Amino acid sequence: MTLSWLSFIISFILSIAFISGQKLYSPRLSLRREDILRDPKRAVSASETNDFKTFFFNQTLDHFNYRPESYSTFKQKYLINYKYWGGANSNAPIFVYLGNESPLDDQLTVIGFLTDNAAQFEALSVYIEHRYYGESIPHGMSLEEALKDANIRGYFSSAQALADFAAIIMHVKQDLKARDSPVIVVGASYGGMLASWFRLKYPHVTLGALASSAPILYFDDIISQDAYSSVVTKDFKEASETCYQAIGDSWSEIDRIAQEPNGTSKLSKMFKTCKPLESGDELKDYLISMYEGAAQYDLPPTYPVSVICNAIDGANTTENGILGKVFAGLIAYNTNSACYVNPPTAISQSSLGWGWQRCSEMVMPKGVTNNSMFQPDPFILSSFTDECNHQYGVVPRPHWITTYYGAHDIELILCRFGSNIIFSNGLRDPFSSAGVLKNISDSIVAVYTEKGAHCLDVYAEDQSDPDWLVMQRKTEFEIIRGWIAKYYADLRAFKQ
Amino acid sequence: MTLSWLSFIISFILSIAFISGQKLYSPRLSLRREDILRDPKRAVSASETNDFKTFFFNQTLDHFNYRPESYSTFKQKYLINYKYWGGANSNAPIFVYLGNESPLDDQLTVIGFLTDNAAQFEALSVYIEHRYYGESIPHGMSLEEALKDANIRGYFSSAQALADFAAIIMHVKQDLKARDSPVIVVGASYGGMLASWFRLKYPHVTLGALASSAPILYFDDIISQDAYSSVVTKDFKEASETCYQAIGDSWSEIDRIAQEPNGTSKLSKMFKTCKPLESGDELKDYLISMYEGAAQYDLPPTYPVSVICNAIDGANTTENGILGKVFAGLIAYNTNSACYVNPPTAISQSSLGWGWQRCSEMVMPKGVTNNSMFQPDPFILSSFTDECNHQYGVVPRPHWITTYYGAHDIELILCRFGSNIIFSNGLRDPFSSAGVLKNISDSIVAVYTEKGAHCLDVYAEDQSDPDWLVMQRKTEFEIIRGWIAKYYADLRAFKQ
Repeated sequence: MTLSWLSFIISFILSIAFISGQKLYSPRLSLRREDILRDPKRAVSASETNDFKTFFFNQTLDHFNYRPESYSTFKQKYLINYKYWGGANSNAPIFVYLGNESPLDDQLTVIGFLTDNAAQFEALSVYIEHRYYGESIPHGMSLEEALKDANIRGYFSSAQALADFAAIIMHVKQDLKARDSPVIVVGASYGGMLASWFRLKYPHVTLGALASSAPILYFDDIISQDAYSSVVTKDFKEASETCYQAIGDSWSEIDRIAQEPNGTSKLSKMFKTCKPLESGDELKDYLISMYEGAAQYDLPPTYPVSVICNAIDGANTTENGILGKVFAGLIAYNTNSACYVNPPTAISQSSLGWGWQRCSEMVMPKGVTNNSMFQPDPFILSSFTDECNHQYGVVPRPHWITTYYGAHDIELILCRFGSNIIFSNGLRDPFSSAGVLKNISDSIVAVYTEKGAHCLDVYAEDQSDPDWLVMQRKTEFEIIRGWIAKYYADLRAFKQ
Repeated sequence: MTLSWLSFIISFILSIAFISGQKLYSPRLSLRREDILRDPKRAVSASETNDFKTFFFNQTLDHFNYRPESYSTFKQKYLINYKYWGGANSNAPIFVYLGNESPLDDQLTVIGFLTDNAAQFEALSVYIEHRYYGESIPHGMSLEEALKDANIRGYFSSAQALADFAAIIMHVKQDLKARDSPVIVVGASYGGMLASWFRLKYPHVTLGALASSAPILYFDDIISQDAYSSVVTKDFKEASETCYQAIGDSWSEIDRIAQEPNGTSKLSKMFKTCKPLESGDELKDYLISMYEGAAQYDLPPTYPVSVICNAIDGANTTENGILGKVFAGLIAYNTNSACYVNPPTAISQSSLGWGWQRCSEMVMPKGVTNNSMFQPDPFILSSFTDECNHQYGVVPRPHWITTYYGAHDIELILCRFGSNIIFSNGLRDPFSSAGVLKNISDSIVAVYTEKGAHCLDVYAEDQSDPDWLVMQRKTEFEIIRGWIAKYYADLRAFKQ
């Protein structure tokens, strides 16, 4: 017991180090509530979330095998909002949100797309939690407990998650006797990948998918590993050339000071860190993460990239030179903080869970080699593999995602296969570089906005939304309306 | 060790009883070499099979999970015929045969479709063995050994088999630097189901599929459980009304004699059985199986249904009455036998393996309730489940196939989804009743013949082939030629 606790604590510490370390190229795939909710108006209203009824489904642990353990079940959480539903008799549609790598409740407070549009479609809204997140963890374990068990965590995979969604959707339809109701799935970020894959793998369970900010091309050798950082760079450069230049120049300045006697102590004071810095890299990792977050969630009406750049450009250069500028950007981004860089925070389920998912199958080779405002930091598969092997004792399968879901030559493959997928993106979002930005066929289409951020289109509507965002959502729903209309016509023809 | 051997022997005996018992509704899904090779000309010539080179691939045991054991590998056999291949430079096509529930070598000797057409397409031919059959069994075990281990047999599933095929095809393409070569998969019977599912699940790995005699609708509540027996009945009735009548009348006559003192002994003599019968049911089970086999493999030029019916109709009724007629049919079907009904035979891999597959996921509810020349023998899911649970300690998942692959409302689902599948059937084959017999879209099409039998279109060509069979094959290949031509045009457009 002592030994296993010790190994748990060690692996926990490693996992924190692993996830916060820049070498891990951890893409911030989750919807970061703290980023999104900088503007609290962006949250779904409490009255709306009160309309949901909570259920737990006895989910099969292992859909693909027939070992005795495969038959184990766990409680998987899902929510239903019946308020606007037109009912089974009219085959009214069912909108299903496919949860991503965080507790469902967190997502519920930001995703408004389904309920915002449910009334006009008389749609049922269903939100399903992804296995191993929130309250949907096998054996009633915490995620930490599940992840430290090499056997239990082994069932934490995307293919299992899609089969979970299929089982729950079919159960809900059967329960409501709504066999002919069309189902539209919606997913955001990793959940957006799941949504597009779900339409491709389970066309008999869903009529169509809205895949918001789904970086499905960030696998294998499909795109450059620099794709993400080059968009972050572009965002800052477009906001301000001088700001971009200052950030680019700051890294070597941090390195220079860190190497001085008491250099890290000097940097700690300069950046008002919550704890003394352990290295210059700690500061750099934080700043990289901040710039990436600002770009990914460069949300209206505040536009954090501009907030940071305005502060950097407007800073008094006499105080602390270029790092004074960078610090001005930092405090403009983090208002109301008493200290910066390394405040005491608990590690999130998203970080923990995604740490495992990346080390098993979600190998997204994000790195920096050139054309960036960051220092080079290439993704090296062998190092990544070693680190994952060290942490979990298994090696990632870097080719599985493209083997199971495909992605190479996606236009060639899907131009005559499949239908009814919207790939939505905002081009300010660095992940848009790995998204589908061209129409592939009449009904596998790309809808993007120049100014949009990560998953912005599926957030709750707000009165301050700019026109281009209102238009994007309208376009998406007109497309979905078209799918449903064609489906009803087909249904009438086949049921005659 | 003694105990485990004992339990193995018991389970082996149970498995034989289980498989031969009529209550198990075992559809003869495999290509029965003994049926097909009644006419030895039907075999692929030895010189043709000599052109194959044999390979073994290090296959992942469990593609869908990341448990430590998931990473185990086993040797999976595949064969390549390079003789006609045009090479990677010209993106020449690759035909891939997806093995079904028998050793690959057995299939190689009857499946001629790929090599018969390889020359005109300059195609590479690849044959892949299905996991757990032939020489592709994990841990170098025999199938019997693998099946008695509750853990090992648990990885014996169709989803794993499809992922195996994907991994090998991608490996072969990579090895040959043939990334842009179109792949056409071909499968027969259960392998035909796999072929159609493979195109739906892995469109990025295969351009199209020929699914020969694939009863993909024989799941859940999609079609009547009587579908199979009603086609057998129709075949016999069409061959001869009096023959059909005689068979229909024979069952109660067997029952009547079996109930007499020394009745089974009398039946044993009457039917010249190899061993004394244990019951009238043993004889009935054999006869049912014979009539089903004759209908399923009612192959030209002999047409076994007619052979049986001619003998029944021509028999001297003075000797043994109606059972004398039935016996005349039996000996006409089994020429050159010294004894009948229960000759000493080893249980085949197909029977063993399919026994497990049916008890885990391939739950095809085949039964007899009415409108048949057989006595009623309904499929009762609860009894089936009990028997499987008794034999393997697991309960079947009767809804998994329709959850993962779909099949309900297939026309509605696929009329605007997917492409490039040929469902080929021969209507004399009882499994055609569960096949797709209508075009679903421009490129998901049905090609069938009135007189065709199970998988006949993919057998090796023979000079005695009737015109309708030659035409069917020609139609199929013209469709495939069209897919490939469109693909090359798309490829040129995308690679410009």
